[in-house]
Amino acid sequence: MTAYEQLVAEGYLVAAAGSGTTVASVRTSPPAGEADSSKGFFTDLLPGEPDPSSFPRQAWGVALRKVLHTSPDGLFRYGDRRGLAELRVALAGYLARSRSVVVDPSRVVIFGGFASALSVLATTFHRLGIDRVAVEDPGLPPLRKVITAGGPAIVPIRVDEHGLRVDDLAAARVVLCTPAHQYPMGVVLSATRRVALIDWARDNDGWIIEDDYDGEFRYDRRPVGAMQGLDPERVIYGGTASKSLAPGVGLAWLVLPPRLLEPVLDTLRQRRDTVSSIEQAALADFIATGRLDRHLRSQRQHYRRRRDSLVQLLENHAPWLEVAGVSAGLHATALLHDRDEQAIIERAAARSVALFGIANHSIGAPTRQGLVIGYSRSAAHAFPQALETLAGILNLR
Amino acid sequence: MTAYEQLVAEGYLVAAAGSGTTVASVRTSPPAGEADSSKGFFTDLLPGEPDPSSFPRQAWGVALRKVLHTSPDGLFRYGDRRGLAELRVALAGYLARSRSVVVDPSRVVIFGGFASALSVLATTFHRLGIDRVAVEDPGLPPLRKVITAGGPAIVPIRVDEHGLRVDDLAAARVVLCTPAHQYPMGVVLSATRRVALIDWARDNDGWIIEDDYDGEFRYDRRPVGAMQGLDPERVIYGGTASKSLAPGVGLAWLVLPPRLLEPVLDTLRQRRDTVSSIEQAALADFIATGRLDRHLRSQRQHYRRRRDSLVQLLENHAPWLEVAGVSAGLHATALLHDRDEQAIIERAAARSVALFGIANHSIGAPTRQGLVIGYSRSAAHAFPQALETLAGILNLR
Repeated sequence: MTAYEQLVAEGYLVAAAGSGTTVASVRTSPPAGEADSSKGFFTDLLPGEPDPSSFPRQAWGVALRKVLHTSPDGLFRYGDRRGLAELRVALAGYLARSRSVVVDPSRVVIFGGFASALSVLATTFHRLGIDRVAVEDPGLPPLRKVITAGGPAIVPIRVDEHGLRVDDLAAARVVLCTPAHQYPMGVVLSATRRVALIDWARDNDGWIIEDDYDGEFRYDRRPVGAMQGLDPERVIYGGTASKSLAPGVGLAWLVLPPRLLEPVLDTLRQRRDTVSSIEQAALADFIATGRLDRHLRSQRQHYRRRRDSLVQLLENHAPWLEVAGVSAGLHATALLHDRDEQAIIERAAARSVALFGIANHSIGAPTRQGLVIGYSRSAAHAFPQALETLAGILNLR
Repeated sequence: MTAYEQLVAEGYLVAAAGSGTTVASVRTSPPAGEADSSKGFFTDLLPGEPDPSSFPRQAWGVALRKVLHTSPDGLFRYGDRRGLAELRVALAGYLARSRSVVVDPSRVVIFGGFASALSVLATTFHRLGIDRVAVEDPGLPPLRKVITAGGPAIVPIRVDEHGLRVDDLAAARVVLCTPAHQYPMGVVLSATRRVALIDWARDNDGWIIEDDYDGEFRYDRRPVGAMQGLDPERVIYGGTASKSLAPGVGLAWLVLPPRLLEPVLDTLRQRRDTVSSIEQAALADFIATGRLDRHLRSQRQHYRRRRDSLVQLLENHAPWLEVAGVSAGLHATALLHDRDEQAIIERAAARSVALFGIANHSIGAPTRQGLVIGYSRSAAHAFPQALETLAGILNLR
């Protein structure tokens, strides 16, 4: 009864006096990527967050202790607007090595999160007279709101089996995209498209914002290098510690083309979002001592096992699903051919399972139907049960 | 020679080939409050930052360790947009007790710094159709830039011996002010003016942003309570850990009137400035265990001794200065009657002393001349030398 009331309170079910309870006909889940989308659900199969029980408390504590014992007093003062120099140096080395980013520490800028960085970029582009930013459709909804709040309008660009349809970009000057692992479709942007995208930027004095949101998680092959390496003058590389460590750490970064550095710092001067220098120093130490690499190695194993279990389960229980994009990241995209996405998501909601579909991420009418199954958010002990619940839902018709 | 070159590079001195070096006739110091204003100077008598060598490294480390060992996993996830509940609860208790703020944890919102909070407020007011924000003149220059970047224009309001001239506010709907210790003049807003200010807000459907930037530092009497207590529906209370702990911690807060809570959260939803939840939890613990109170007690003694030394020095070496505003805060305002502020600041710059005057804080032509002497930024071991250097400068004519 409590669960029912909760579902009614959140709008998933409609309780009409005298006529029982029905599944709400309105959109049955909040827009993808909202912080509290899974609130009130028993099982969490949403994408976008790592397992919080895997946060390296012990190792992070060691890094913080070292920072507090050994840092010069300057750490506690107002610092460089770009962020702590030690972290920018450590990130430059890490990104060059692990993501083939062409980077100099002077062009790395630290933020409290990628969305916060995007907000600063949107405001900066707006000040530079750019009034439209292209985004992938489907894509992550809250980022659109962040862009429009900064001034520019959104131009949706379709995604197909090769990734972003670069030919459709003509009208825009800036594009936000996820080349390594399209969110949510899971496609890797093809080599031809990458070249076309860079050509587009060069021909139109355009900018590419590369959201490398889960670039660290590759399972079956070497990571696809960042696009930024193809043209560091045209690509803004964005990364975050929200997936590799935790959102609660509150750290993300941009690698900026030289021409954009001063305009972005101007915006920061006007916004003054500050980021804890203590956490910044801890991440610098975490990278420099190899602890981040060790953590990521164990995380990759952990999530690869989860992915394998999920794929196995989908093969066994729902062979009618076409699983895509599972060589990387923290979610699987399961395309539907002859079943209804919305019906499955409503059945999941009725069983207190938070689950998104492609429609939750779409701007225009979706061209595909499918489920976007996040396998990282459950705690390790809860994951087998989550899979079993999912199987139950998929077995229903 | 190196010092000279540095001063030339920073524009304080002008080196013309063949004609020697002269003090630059342009403004000889950057606008007050810029993070790196004291860069390149040997002696730092700027206001605005606590002594970084007094940061409680040990105690903060204990709080962080406890947080990492005992917090539930939820700490590492995306959290409440207002900030960590534990911190909002701890702050509500602390602000009610120490600053007479009328506060409920649900209306406390955490930011990375006060300027960042002000940026969100400015954007919010702009969205609400408010296009002008009144500020104190003189006041802190970077905050003006933060406001105008958010949309509203600035309306300067004079400050006299009773504080902000409330009668001049008519044209504005919002005012940013420092009632407890006017920055930089040091005046406490008089009781009559406080009442008038609240009346102004009620009569004009206006809002008062109370920047309680150094409310914790009172030496000779009980702290003046926050204005917010007079009308929690009209006053937005703003506080920060940047003075009580350190800017590097990156934590500040607003207590919002009920009517403003949702509009501010809407802006945050679009900006997504995240603040480390680990540092938030550490501050919550620091407050709850009484460590913040202990730290502040020892800091007050530390700065009171510095203040006493400074006041003694000014009496001995510059009896022509009229010292004001020293019962609180981390700076003294030394009014000039028959000497030139700019000349003294240039003499200081030529001796590599970073020192601001009232002109550095003014919008219109200043009605008073005077020095704004910060006594908190030097490390303890460097402070006696800083005073001696100041005495040398004041003894020159």
